[in-house]
Amino acid sequence: MSDYTHILLAIDLSTDSPQVCQKARSLAQFYGAKISIIHVVEPLSFTYGSDIPLDFSDIQQDLMNQAKHQLQEIASNIGIDDESCHLTLGRPETEIHNLAAAINADLIVVGSHGRHGLALIFGSTANGVLHGAGCDVLAVRVEESE
Amino acid sequence: MSDYTHILLAIDLSTDSPQVCQKARSLAQFYGAKISIIHVVEPLSFTYGSDIPLDFSDIQQDLMNQAKHQLQEIASNIGIDDESCHLTLGRPETEIHNLAAAINADLIVVGSHGRHGLALIFGSTANGVLHGAGCDVLAVRVEESE
Repeated sequence: MSDYTHILLAIDLSTDSPQVCQKARSLAQFYGAKISIIHVVEPLSFTYGSDIPLDFSDIQQDLMNQAKHQLQEIASNIGIDDESCHLTLGRPETEIHNLAAAINADLIVVGSHGRHGLALIFGSTANGVLHGAGCDVLAVRVEESE
Repeated sequence: MSDYTHILLAIDLSTDSPQVCQKARSLAQFYGAKISIIHVVEPLSFTYGSDIPLDFSDIQQDLMNQAKHQLQEIASNIGIDDESCHLTLGRPETEIHNLAAAINADLIVVGSHGRHGLALIFGSTANGVLHGAGCDVLAVRVEESE
């Protein structure tokens, strides 16, 4: 009843990702669970506003290509095949919830960056993921260099 | 490096607690970790306001006694001894963070009640625990009858 069968590992491609991957991998081994992995790229228009008359599409595509390369490298290091590797563009919480529901994940593993800086004001991705998730969420506390 | 050694199980004594206990127990077995358990009773003055000229102390003591009994029963069912059983009075997030730090817990397991009712507005205890925790947090999604 309580065993995990499909873990969704949500990573931000930061230097902290290995800690988060390691936890997900260890749990997957224990429960004999499958792991899928997701990274969400936020559209540049979210960051810079949609009113600015600049065409971000080429830069956005470059970012996606770089992210894809890094994601596949991380996934391959922990033995996750390309089919279980998801790169999407959008709001992290929304994309992670949608994929978790689509693949019937019963645990989402996500890094949590504590209470520094903007995360304190807007809530971290981990908080956003927890809020409204349809399954369990493990927030792995990653140490930050200050 | 990434193994859990001391799990703090934070429960609300609801009917959902067994699901949360079961997850904590299963993880503790896997990692060979110790489990401590905490339940936090919120002071009635938080709920009813401190301006009301009523003396809640007897009722508060009754609530604490009942909670102590229930907490010990749950703890004993999952093989946790009395010394690892903590009942405190205060704000749940604060008490849970303080105890986690005091006992060097490296994982807090807490039930998460999703996005219904007041939790949607004020944030659930799980969100509060995640925000500012010094260690990993596993939020176990408990199903609610609506």
